[in-house]
Amino acid sequence: MRTYLDCIPCFFNQALRAGRIATGDENKLKKLLDEIGTMLRDIPLESTPPETGMLIYEKVRKITGKFDPYNELKRESTEKALALYPSLKNKVEKSNDKLLTAIRIAIAGNVIDFGVNRKFDIEEEIDNVLKKDFAIFDYDKFKDYLDKTDEILYIGDNAGESVFDRILIEEMKKPVIYVVREIPVINDVTYEDAIQAGIDKVATILSSGTSAPGTVLETCNAEFKEVYKNSKFVIGKGQGNYEGLSDEKHLIFFLLKAKCWVIANDIGVNEGDIVLKGINV
Amino acid sequence: MRTYLDCIPCFFNQALRAGRIATGDENKLKKLLDEIGTMLRDIPLESTPPETGMLIYEKVRKITGKFDPYNELKRESTEKALALYPSLKNKVEKSNDKLLTAIRIAIAGNVIDFGVNRKFDIEEEIDNVLKKDFAIFDYDKFKDYLDKTDEILYIGDNAGESVFDRILIEEMKKPVIYVVREIPVINDVTYEDAIQAGIDKVATILSSGTSAPGTVLETCNAEFKEVYKNSKFVIGKGQGNYEGLSDEKHLIFFLLKAKCWVIANDIGVNEGDIVLKGINV
Repeated sequence: MRTYLDCIPCFFNQALRAGRIATGDENKLKKLLDEIGTMLRDIPLESTPPETGMLIYEKVRKITGKFDPYNELKRESTEKALALYPSLKNKVEKSNDKLLTAIRIAIAGNVIDFGVNRKFDIEEEIDNVLKKDFAIFDYDKFKDYLDKTDEILYIGDNAGESVFDRILIEEMKKPVIYVVREIPVINDVTYEDAIQAGIDKVATILSSGTSAPGTVLETCNAEFKEVYKNSKFVIGKGQGNYEGLSDEKHLIFFLLKAKCWVIANDIGVNEGDIVLKGINV
Repeated sequence: MRTYLDCIPCFFNQALRAGRIATGDENKLKKLLDEIGTMLRDIPLESTPPETGMLIYEKVRKITGKFDPYNELKRESTEKALALYPSLKNKVEKSNDKLLTAIRIAIAGNVIDFGVNRKFDIEEEIDNVLKKDFAIFDYDKFKDYLDKTDEILYIGDNAGESVFDRILIEEMKKPVIYVVREIPVINDVTYEDAIQAGIDKVATILSSGTSAPGTVLETCNAEFKEVYKNSKFVIGKGQGNYEGLSDEKHLIFFLLKAKCWVIANDIGVNEGDIVLKGINV
């Protein structure tokens, strides 16, 4: 997805939100916004938002001196999600379509996102997403490709959300490579977070190599790019992966909730909608 | 009022909103945001937001080539407000406290503001503000000073809103100097807009000389500064005038609706509250 003009004020909001988690020093926060301001002219509208996100969070780290401002929030998110795990498994077990319920739960977990300015109630969100109609619902194709594949490349999104991904991974009953970010960026899932979520028990964890809050292929490592190139079944979770990969010529199923109206508009749905969208299928 | 860090993303939103009214050319809009980005480091947090507003709208004019993007919207706002004028006069006539009802109506008119990202329904707003409790209500002091003064300096805010101001002016029954901006900035009231609203029939119109969306004294002309210095009863209407004058050592009554949470917080009220606040009283 390209950068829309409306993404630009949002970049400053995101920087301020992350900066404030890292420091209370107003002078540092002003410097952070000033530097993003200066950088703006070098950000073409043709670039994807996570490319800019990467630069923004580099600046947050550099100026505040905090490598991982969201560390504590991420750990808490994962703990809360783990506490819900047994009841979520139970919901899947009791449902008529276990795979679909697991997909819905994985999407509900996508609400754990500190990059989007929104407070959330995860239990309320689960109830909503379990009942909600999909705005795009490529479920039949998803099942077809799932049947045929012998391996799934599952690109994770946020810490905490990974526990919900785990439920879907368990339900797909195929070998899964679960992709994490190389270093902490917002509350995106890293290797350490995936381990905390128990992903290592159900999948092979692989770092994409990127420090962007989304999959920006040019910044990914050779190993990930090779696996990606050869994969016949890719799941891209959340907005950041959609933003980075939506223009790819590769079969990808995006699972997300459209939490931002700009992304909703790019997908062709309404803000708040849930989406199971396959591209190049 | 100082500039808060949260004002910075809002500056970009405002620029984008104004820019889009002036042009559909995405390259020009990107250039506009880029130039505001570059300018950011020269905007100290000690400056008032309308000082930056002035620079932003200068850039909107320069880059889009449109001197007055809101011209059409302003004319329409005033026409709509004029159509309501007889019924508003009627509300005042029928009320127990005519002055207070006129104050409430003047505040309701403050909802006509294209600088704040909000759609509004003016008739609904009038009904709300006529019933709503004031969060700050220095009405007794307002009446005391009004009784004693022989002239009122009434600093206007937006076009359209001026028709509502006219109702208050008529109810105060004292000579009024009504202050307008020197050139168009957002939908702020200029000389031409005030004439359209019929202000010339009830007050002497005076330009403050500023091109800021608020009263920034350093940018005002000598005549206004002299009148202001000597005035014993100043009314500052709307957020822009509050932002520009809230730290002044001069008796001013601010009449406004807090439409932005940053300003609400600075005043010490909640977003959406209505305020009749005297300073140095």
